[in-house]
Amino acid sequence: MAANRHSDTSDHYRYEEIEKRIEGLVKRGTYSAGERVPSVRSLSRQMKVSISTVLKAYFHLENKGVIEARPQSGYYVRQQFPRLSPEPEIPHTPTVPMHVTVNELVMMIMRDGRNPDLVPLGVATPNPENLPADKLNRILSTISRRYKYQGVSYHFPPGCEKLRVQLAQRAMTAGCSLAPDQIVVTSGCLEAVMLSLRAVCKPGDTVAIESPLFYNLLQVIEMLDLKALEIPTHPQTGMSLSALLNALEHNPVHACLVISNYNNPFGSCMPDDKKKELVRILAGYNIPLIEDDVYGDLGFSHDRPRVAKRYDKKGLVILCSSFSKTLAPGYRVGWVAPGRFQEKIERLKAVSNIAAATLPQLAIAEFLANGGYDQYLRRIRGIYARQTSLMSNAVQRYFPDGTEVNKPLGGFVLWVEMPEYIDSIELYDQALKMGITIAPGLIFSASRKYRNYIRLNAAYWSDKIEKSLVKIGELAAAMRK
Amino acid sequence: MAANRHSDTSDHYRYEEIEKRIEGLVKRGTYSAGERVPSVRSLSRQMKVSISTVLKAYFHLENKGVIEARPQSGYYVRQQFPRLSPEPEIPHTPTVPMHVTVNELVMMIMRDGRNPDLVPLGVATPNPENLPADKLNRILSTISRRYKYQGVSYHFPPGCEKLRVQLAQRAMTAGCSLAPDQIVVTSGCLEAVMLSLRAVCKPGDTVAIESPLFYNLLQVIEMLDLKALEIPTHPQTGMSLSALLNALEHNPVHACLVISNYNNPFGSCMPDDKKKELVRILAGYNIPLIEDDVYGDLGFSHDRPRVAKRYDKKGLVILCSSFSKTLAPGYRVGWVAPGRFQEKIERLKAVSNIAAATLPQLAIAEFLANGGYDQYLRRIRGIYARQTSLMSNAVQRYFPDGTEVNKPLGGFVLWVEMPEYIDSIELYDQALKMGITIAPGLIFSASRKYRNYIRLNAAYWSDKIEKSLVKIGELAAAMRK
Repeated sequence: MAANRHSDTSDHYRYEEIEKRIEGLVKRGTYSAGERVPSVRSLSRQMKVSISTVLKAYFHLENKGVIEARPQSGYYVRQQFPRLSPEPEIPHTPTVPMHVTVNELVMMIMRDGRNPDLVPLGVATPNPENLPADKLNRILSTISRRYKYQGVSYHFPPGCEKLRVQLAQRAMTAGCSLAPDQIVVTSGCLEAVMLSLRAVCKPGDTVAIESPLFYNLLQVIEMLDLKALEIPTHPQTGMSLSALLNALEHNPVHACLVISNYNNPFGSCMPDDKKKELVRILAGYNIPLIEDDVYGDLGFSHDRPRVAKRYDKKGLVILCSSFSKTLAPGYRVGWVAPGRFQEKIERLKAVSNIAAATLPQLAIAEFLANGGYDQYLRRIRGIYARQTSLMSNAVQRYFPDGTEVNKPLGGFVLWVEMPEYIDSIELYDQALKMGITIAPGLIFSASRKYRNYIRLNAAYWSDKIEKSLVKIGELAAAMRK
Repeated sequence: MAANRHSDTSDHYRYEEIEKRIEGLVKRGTYSAGERVPSVRSLSRQMKVSISTVLKAYFHLENKGVIEARPQSGYYVRQQFPRLSPEPEIPHTPTVPMHVTVNELVMMIMRDGRNPDLVPLGVATPNPENLPADKLNRILSTISRRYKYQGVSYHFPPGCEKLRVQLAQRAMTAGCSLAPDQIVVTSGCLEAVMLSLRAVCKPGDTVAIESPLFYNLLQVIEMLDLKALEIPTHPQTGMSLSALLNALEHNPVHACLVISNYNNPFGSCMPDDKKKELVRILAGYNIPLIEDDVYGDLGFSHDRPRVAKRYDKKGLVILCSSFSKTLAPGYRVGWVAPGRFQEKIERLKAVSNIAAATLPQLAIAEFLANGGYDQYLRRIRGIYARQTSLMSNAVQRYFPDGTEVNKPLGGFVLWVEMPEYIDSIELYDQALKMGITIAPGLIFSASRKYRNYIRLNAAYWSDKIEKSLVKIGELAAAMRK
């Protein structure tokens, strides 16, 4: 026991050594995909470290997507992204503000997306079977009995305090210090972004955005009659700051909107230093930054990235998020930390629909407090790392030559560049006839770029999904003239 | 038995005779407030009708607010509105479109309204103790276990079908024939109205409205940068159609917005013929009518009034409602029947916040199907009839001479005209210092009319409420210079 305790303390920091060693062995091919890595017990003996140290190393490797645990069996090398998979280039983007007109197309895709008979590769919703539905619904059930009168009553903006306290505590994990009364509860993240845009822009104003950008955000810009200024965006590190600076010099810009962590559709993650710089640049122009962090908890690495809001000194960063990608889309619970626009956003929320539903707010608060959110995140991040990897491999295998898949760092979507001869709208139509939905690239841009791109939802994985990818590949290949 | 059955059929239609007779006796003072009316048994003998016929008559009288049942005791004449209570005149209103700027004031009042330590005479929210909170929360609890995956998932617009089926069935009681797919679920009625206004107006457009009008609707008009054209409104029968016609001739109007049944703050109810005429007039100009029917189920009479939507032939009437005044504000479940704007409103809902929370929708659907909504409505309508009457009497008694109270036909608010020397904002401030909230008249108008009016919420009644009215009366009297 004494010896054990001794090694527990002395080897506490040796987990990094183990982590690096195993990762190196996997990289060099010593252990290849599907192979079992050394058991925890044997490695503990071999390296003369405690079991917990090996476990810590393996846990980190799991989060990185290098290995995966199989119940009753041990740790195995995970299916990797093809090492040489090229990433789509930053396309040349004309930096001219333009009106957005994606609405029609997006509605078509959302309509198909709600048809449960279709293979759901289009809309980016989580697979409910992977969500903690049982636990959440059990909590909701208990809460609805406990808060009898509160449950049926409004919680006027800023929203339920119990939830805001949890959100403020959790913001710490993203490096952000917030008080509960600096948060406003919304009906999802999309509403948070919409209220933010309303708070800082008037019709006709220009918003600098990433390109490509999640189509629902483009729709909001369209609905509010704003103009989009598309800034070239790196598929791994996000919006190009030099392109942004250049654009700011030539255009009046009234807000900047980014999905800072695990952007949809890239899965990119803006490095924290770059976030800091982005905040600094915009502050210099006094331009509000609307930061959508809805995927922030879903990174494949074990480090939770910071939010740009962390670097906000002037109250100009408006941080938006929700639990629609992590816990329960159907609960419609999101939030915004509005900085200096607090009062304005509280008011806009009140006038839009008074409040978010009360009991779902209380249920999410309870889940965050006592439901094992972190454990759950570890599990789901592993699932998404594995599934995006499997889907990426399948796309490489089944799609026509010249197809390139972006490597996401988090989230659960894949951005796929296909050969020039592919018209993704036509591909959408043909796939739909076979009972499969995809998201055509066109709807991710105000300027109708990305004609030959598609986005795939990797939240689902099964033989049926793989077969659907085979079919899409065949349809695409047949388009070659 | 045979004789009984005979009388059951032959006297089936005699309940109206009994109803009129008792009502007449109460009106003429034969039975006065608090007095017991003939027992059901004695009247049955006396009139030679069945017990059930008398019960039917008494039930109608109860719904009309003429009598009330006391447990184990019988039927008593209810506290009546003072017979000679004068009603506020239709004020002269300049029919010029104007920008709305009530936001600041309204937010102040909503902020105070959410403070549970204050006496809640300001915000028009139901008293949760009178809502079927137990039953609703029990249903929600059951449903959240039953619909495991559905509960955590989105129900994209138009929303949960189970709910839309119930809503379509129930629309029949308002004389309106709707299919489930002609309904879009929203997060409350306010959102329904906002989406409707967005669907038919662009910034700068003019909306014809009642005056006075519920301040939250004015806020929506303000937020959307629309102009309000205030049409004189009769305190019992709603918007003046001749004034509307006159206004239409002199102004470009892009939409008309009315609370057709039990308007807030008047409690007025537009007669069905007048609704038909309103629809006809607007159709002639091709102007959409946005009809807010959120109080429609809360009339004091036993007849459920029709909705204007019933008379819609061109798909120009957009019917909006919710369960926030009847069942559960905190569930945030509303709906809209958009007529020809169906697709546009579905899209606007999707872009605004994707969907209303799923489980509250399913819970309301279940309550409508099997929860005894009609029984509950009978009870709550009796409560509101009684409490508006009691509060009206108290206002007459305790407020300064020259105070006039409008007689509502449904809902649970009172519109009070006070003497000219009253500044309702100052009264608001002074009452707040004593721990009481009221709604000052100013916020019910775009043109800052109704300076000496206040609206009172009669959803609560207790000794404390009555004492608060005494205090308000004293504060008001002291304002006399």
